[in-house]
Amino acid sequence: MKNVTILGSTGSIGRQTLEIIADFPNLYKVDILTAHSNIAMLEEQCKIFKPNCVVITDANARNNFLKKTQFKNDVFDGEILKLSSIFFESDIVVSALVGIAGLLPTINAIKSGKTILLANKEILVVAGNYIMNLSRKNNVKIIPIDSEHSAIYQCLLGEKKENINKIILTASGGPFLKLKNNELQNIKAADALKHPTWNMGTKVTIDSATMMNKGFEAIEAMWLFGLDINKIDVVIHPQSIIHSMVEFVDGSVKAQLSPPDMRFPISFALAEGNRIANNFEKLDFNKLNKLEFSPVPKNKFPCLDLVFSCAEKGGNACAILNAANEIAVSEFIKNKINFLDIPRIIETALANIDFLENPSLDDLLATDAKTREYIQKLLAIN
Amino acid sequence: MKNVTILGSTGSIGRQTLEIIADFPNLYKVDILTAHSNIAMLEEQCKIFKPNCVVITDANARNNFLKKTQFKNDVFDGEILKLSSIFFESDIVVSALVGIAGLLPTINAIKSGKTILLANKEILVVAGNYIMNLSRKNNVKIIPIDSEHSAIYQCLLGEKKENINKIILTASGGPFLKLKNNELQNIKAADALKHPTWNMGTKVTIDSATMMNKGFEAIEAMWLFGLDINKIDVVIHPQSIIHSMVEFVDGSVKAQLSPPDMRFPISFALAEGNRIANNFEKLDFNKLNKLEFSPVPKNKFPCLDLVFSCAEKGGNACAILNAANEIAVSEFIKNKINFLDIPRIIETALANIDFLENPSLDDLLATDAKTREYIQKLLAIN
Repeated sequence: MKNVTILGSTGSIGRQTLEIIADFPNLYKVDILTAHSNIAMLEEQCKIFKPNCVVITDANARNNFLKKTQFKNDVFDGEILKLSSIFFESDIVVSALVGIAGLLPTINAIKSGKTILLANKEILVVAGNYIMNLSRKNNVKIIPIDSEHSAIYQCLLGEKKENINKIILTASGGPFLKLKNNELQNIKAADALKHPTWNMGTKVTIDSATMMNKGFEAIEAMWLFGLDINKIDVVIHPQSIIHSMVEFVDGSVKAQLSPPDMRFPISFALAEGNRIANNFEKLDFNKLNKLEFSPVPKNKFPCLDLVFSCAEKGGNACAILNAANEIAVSEFIKNKINFLDIPRIIETALANIDFLENPSLDDLLATDAKTREYIQKLLAIN
Repeated sequence: MKNVTILGSTGSIGRQTLEIIADFPNLYKVDILTAHSNIAMLEEQCKIFKPNCVVITDANARNNFLKKTQFKNDVFDGEILKLSSIFFESDIVVSALVGIAGLLPTINAIKSGKTILLANKEILVVAGNYIMNLSRKNNVKIIPIDSEHSAIYQCLLGEKKENINKIILTASGGPFLKLKNNELQNIKAADALKHPTWNMGTKVTIDSATMMNKGFEAIEAMWLFGLDINKIDVVIHPQSIIHSMVEFVDGSVKAQLSPPDMRFPISFALAEGNRIANNFEKLDFNKLNKLEFSPVPKNKFPCLDLVFSCAEKGGNACAILNAANEIAVSEFIKNKINFLDIPRIIETALANIDFLENPSLDDLLATDAKTREYIQKLLAIN
């Protein structure tokens, strides 16, 4: 029986993780759940999973929760996540907060020596070097939840790292793959949120539409598997059945496939890389018909190009990129900027925030804050 | 430096194995080459690879070879393959003889404790139980050369056998996949030999057209990976890029891909499951376009159905099937019988040769001889 803490239990990954935990009550037990403000859902989750404690990071939401809840255990505010000791009773910590907010809690979970199931991309995008060193130092296993990285992780079982020739990340291409460049100007957030295959959170969906998400995955893969960014290719695969591939030095390619359902990689990660039978609908190759591939169209996804150049540059470049993207996407969702402004805002940030070659964690956090401040001023956000 | 013996060096697999050995003179050295009657090619191979000795199994061919050859080392007849000690200086024995002829030499190679690279399918079809027990007893590693089994072997690296849900063998479907059943009657061997993707020997090509080859692969997979025959599925995949797949209990599927070029699995096997960089043309997913799948058409490939029922039956059923198939295919190549006679002849043999539930190796060899005799009488072959 493993005790599972979920950082971000009311988000898309958090909820699907709880679905699986509910299916396997003899394997998993909930330790801590954390939420930002969705207290109605958290109340439901408390009833079903009876966590040892919960954390609510939004102060108003926490007050409202405390007034109405039937939950009898501790209800902490976000400050508690600054203590590694809070993870004392956990065996596994699912890092499923969205954005930079997940960084410090995840660092503390790593310091506590717990196995990390990583769904948050920005953590490795901003502080990949720091996180990987810290996890080595604490002998902590990081198992990816992202379907692409789970695929790569599975393809690498029993293989030697030095035999990797390249990683081929598959990308659905998002909802705008077939639009002409001049049609992208007038896209609204609502258009982007009609993503074809995956059930994801709002920010990830916009990041998919710009392919920033795929770029983040490339950086994540670079850190998780210790590879140069130029060993990571992206190919469009609209069916989202092959979740990624590894080409080895002998030209053999291994791919991992499943229906586009996050419960597959989540259950693989929860089992800590083992395989547990489930009742999810499986692939049927007699009905699958075909898997298609095409190159990423040139000049269509400037965010993807920005990621690769930032990853090559190193230092705090990806921290600038991530912070600028986070603000830009948030403004796009509010219909304050248009779709093509997203990469422009990021470029402006990269041109104006000081580059640091060997940033400390504090430098990275300062870069993040400075970039946000800069973009907010630029966009006259109050 | 590994010493490699090739049983069947003038066949398709033998020649391609030598191509790779030629590419890596610092890794591999030829120990013994064996051929049946193609002495012109063997002479060439002797010049290039300077084996320690050669074996020529056809008596006339051996006499002719001895008259003209410039090869100075020993030239044995087939009797020598009855001695395990002949493999004394080999590290690896490539079992690439076609048909039942490969059985006893391969058994002797296993008894000598050498690593076996297995290309001959009939060995496991006829005597899978015996061969697998013998290799366990002698602590011998059997690495498959067949692209399908190499794919499965690669997908299973780092995985537990008990986590296999099923194996999905891919099949190109052969040249007659799209013919109507009534069009199959008039097919000639020459039609079958226009196989679309792979460069293979004659018998294997006919076996591909009947899908007997795929059936043999199912039996081979059953023995190599210790699975029930009902855990093995076949799906049509015309591009022959995905060489086979494994579905695990958690619904995750792993696939191995490469261009349809036997040098990929041969070089993986020669490296004993390691990966050595090569200059073979690699897959390019930016150009690949699509991978298609479809079910095996019902009632179109009676040979495939016969295999599955024989595998389920066990005992000497697959030995009867194999012997009957070997004679039938040979008569078909000579245009003595028609395409649809192949499964009919096999069915007749299965109905008329005594079934043995727990055959010894001698029983299996006797079954083989008896079946051949029966079919030869039936077809009035001299």
